[in-house]
Amino acid sequence: MTLTETCRQIGAPDQSAAREAQRRLDDKTKPRRSLGRLEDLACLIAAARGTAAPALPTKAVVVMAADHGVADEGVSAYPAEVTGQMLLNFARGGAAINVLCRQVGARLVVADLGTRTAPAAEGVLDRRIGPGTRNFTTGPAMTREQAVAALEAGIAIAQDLAGDGVDLIGLGDMGIGNTTAASALTAAFIGLDPGEVTGRGTGVDDAGWERKVAAIRRALAVNGREGEPLDLAARLGGFEILGLAGVVLGAAARRVPVVVDGFITAAAALVAVRLAPLAAGYLIASHRSVEVGHRALLAALQTPPLLDLELRLGEGSGAALAMPLVEAAVRVLHEMATFSSAGVSDSGR
Amino acid sequence: MTLTETCRQIGAPDQSAAREAQRRLDDKTKPRRSLGRLEDLACLIAAARGTAAPALPTKAVVVMAADHGVADEGVSAYPAEVTGQMLLNFARGGAAINVLCRQVGARLVVADLGTRTAPAAEGVLDRRIGPGTRNFTTGPAMTREQAVAALEAGIAIAQDLAGDGVDLIGLGDMGIGNTTAASALTAAFIGLDPGEVTGRGTGVDDAGWERKVAAIRRALAVNGREGEPLDLAARLGGFEILGLAGVVLGAAARRVPVVVDGFITAAAALVAVRLAPLAAGYLIASHRSVEVGHRALLAALQTPPLLDLELRLGEGSGAALAMPLVEAAVRVLHEMATFSSAGVSDSGR
Repeated sequence: MTLTETCRQIGAPDQSAAREAQRRLDDKTKPRRSLGRLEDLACLIAAARGTAAPALPTKAVVVMAADHGVADEGVSAYPAEVTGQMLLNFARGGAAINVLCRQVGARLVVADLGTRTAPAAEGVLDRRIGPGTRNFTTGPAMTREQAVAALEAGIAIAQDLAGDGVDLIGLGDMGIGNTTAASALTAAFIGLDPGEVTGRGTGVDDAGWERKVAAIRRALAVNGREGEPLDLAARLGGFEILGLAGVVLGAAARRVPVVVDGFITAAAALVAVRLAPLAAGYLIASHRSVEVGHRALLAALQTPPLLDLELRLGEGSGAALAMPLVEAAVRVLHEMATFSSAGVSDSGR
Repeated sequence: MTLTETCRQIGAPDQSAAREAQRRLDDKTKPRRSLGRLEDLACLIAAARGTAAPALPTKAVVVMAADHGVADEGVSAYPAEVTGQMLLNFARGGAAINVLCRQVGARLVVADLGTRTAPAAEGVLDRRIGPGTRNFTTGPAMTREQAVAALEAGIAIAQDLAGDGVDLIGLGDMGIGNTTAASALTAAFIGLDPGEVTGRGTGVDDAGWERKVAAIRRALAVNGREGEPLDLAARLGGFEILGLAGVVLGAAARRVPVVVDGFITAAAALVAVRLAPLAAGYLIASHRSVEVGHRALLAALQTPPLLDLELRLGEGSGAALAMPLVEAAVRVLHEMATFSSAGVSDSGR
């Protein structure tokens, strides 16, 4: 489905289903609202799915990988070839996200949106837009056409998953240099200074951090920090970031809630929401990462994070870790007894 | 096993196993420490179990219920008979903790440490010390002998579970009036004013909160706020609170880590740690509840909570919700590839 058509299909979450879910929770044998944010989560799922009795979720995590031209500026603690190496690690089942998906019973979908080294690996979807983005300190990261292609690749993956019965999608990223792109997007979309939204990524030292901030300043000077969302995302984004934004849009169009991981996937979610504001209602923030820019994105998306575990890995690790909480919320809605069915006095009303 | 003998058996967690676990995590294909507190959790489990390669945990949640004489002072939003009614609800599988134990694959053990109504229910362990504690605004809640009996009942349950191969125990509580007892214990053990450590429990209104604080002040005036830990716990505690403290001691003696739930179970954990300080190394705080006294307890126990979901239910609900995080931490230790095995460049060292 095209980007335009998908954005047009995204509807508002069903608030009457959410209210009905809250009424059901209020009848359960527990003091009102005593399950706190788990109850909000149950209502969000109800609203997204359009029913006060949503099914226990069938879960998938989509990890997208791509390389970034800006990696040549020495902004990362790791060399660019690690993107491709990690893609192989995902394919072989040895990365953290493989372990965590097994733990929570989520299907893992890995897609190459444009690594430099293009490893052929079974189980990796080839959705390559190019051999990494261009170095955005000297010009746009990608063309508008490439941005649309990446978005539509993500839309197609989400739609395929929804077609397979998946109704909870986690987002994950891999791409050496991608916190630099995410910081640039955050600075431009929210209107913040690069110094305020740039962190250590996978662990650069002070000099690396200075180079990173300087690269973002050059990128914003060369590409501008204003414009139509799609153009801005093309100039400052990454193939995997645009692909993940597409997953958000494709999922929202199918009323499938999306569990956002850390900084990179939150930047992707912000791109999606700028393209289709109603997509915001389908977002669940899994955790607050140590990346400073992530806080700004969570505030802009108005999604309070479920976990605060000082994660800074990406790959969808936080999204996978949060999925059992979503599942627990839905399960409470279905399986708990009511005051009347259990014969428990409800004087707390 | 007796209380004295159990306390004597508790050894320090094995810090060399923790260091070895961290070395193993540092070789995994991820930036160092990028899994944040999940890595701390893996090391805590390694230290508790005394091995850098601990098994995936076999999980149980122990919920203890009892009544409190102080409930007669109008300190709760619910009548005292709800304790027994909820015990039946646990037995029939309709409460939140039943749902959450099913969700995370934990065995649920329910014990009656002394409800007033004493419902006979299959699947509830009868460990009754008496028909609820005495009203502690007019004298001690229980005798020292009753306190020892409750502690030893908890020790026996933990030891039985450890004997069955359970190596991760969550704590849960049920008892109308028990936040009043927990606030009194917190005020006495940490040396704080009752007004600072008293919350709304299951949801009392302003007048109820005033009655609750006043009852705690009377309890502290009548029973004193100083003394040997066992005496203080007997005068101000509850049967389920002492029983849960016993579970902590019995588990720690068998090197089994314990997942603490909210306010009540944290008060139980503090009693255990005052009786046997080394037990502190086996504690995992699952969440920060909305109960104000819980913060003081988490600080005193030096256990940072994993979740902050505005829960205030008890029953072990937060403990169950946090168990998948513990399991994920251990799984990462076992299943992730190393840099060398996966052929990934580790320039981030």
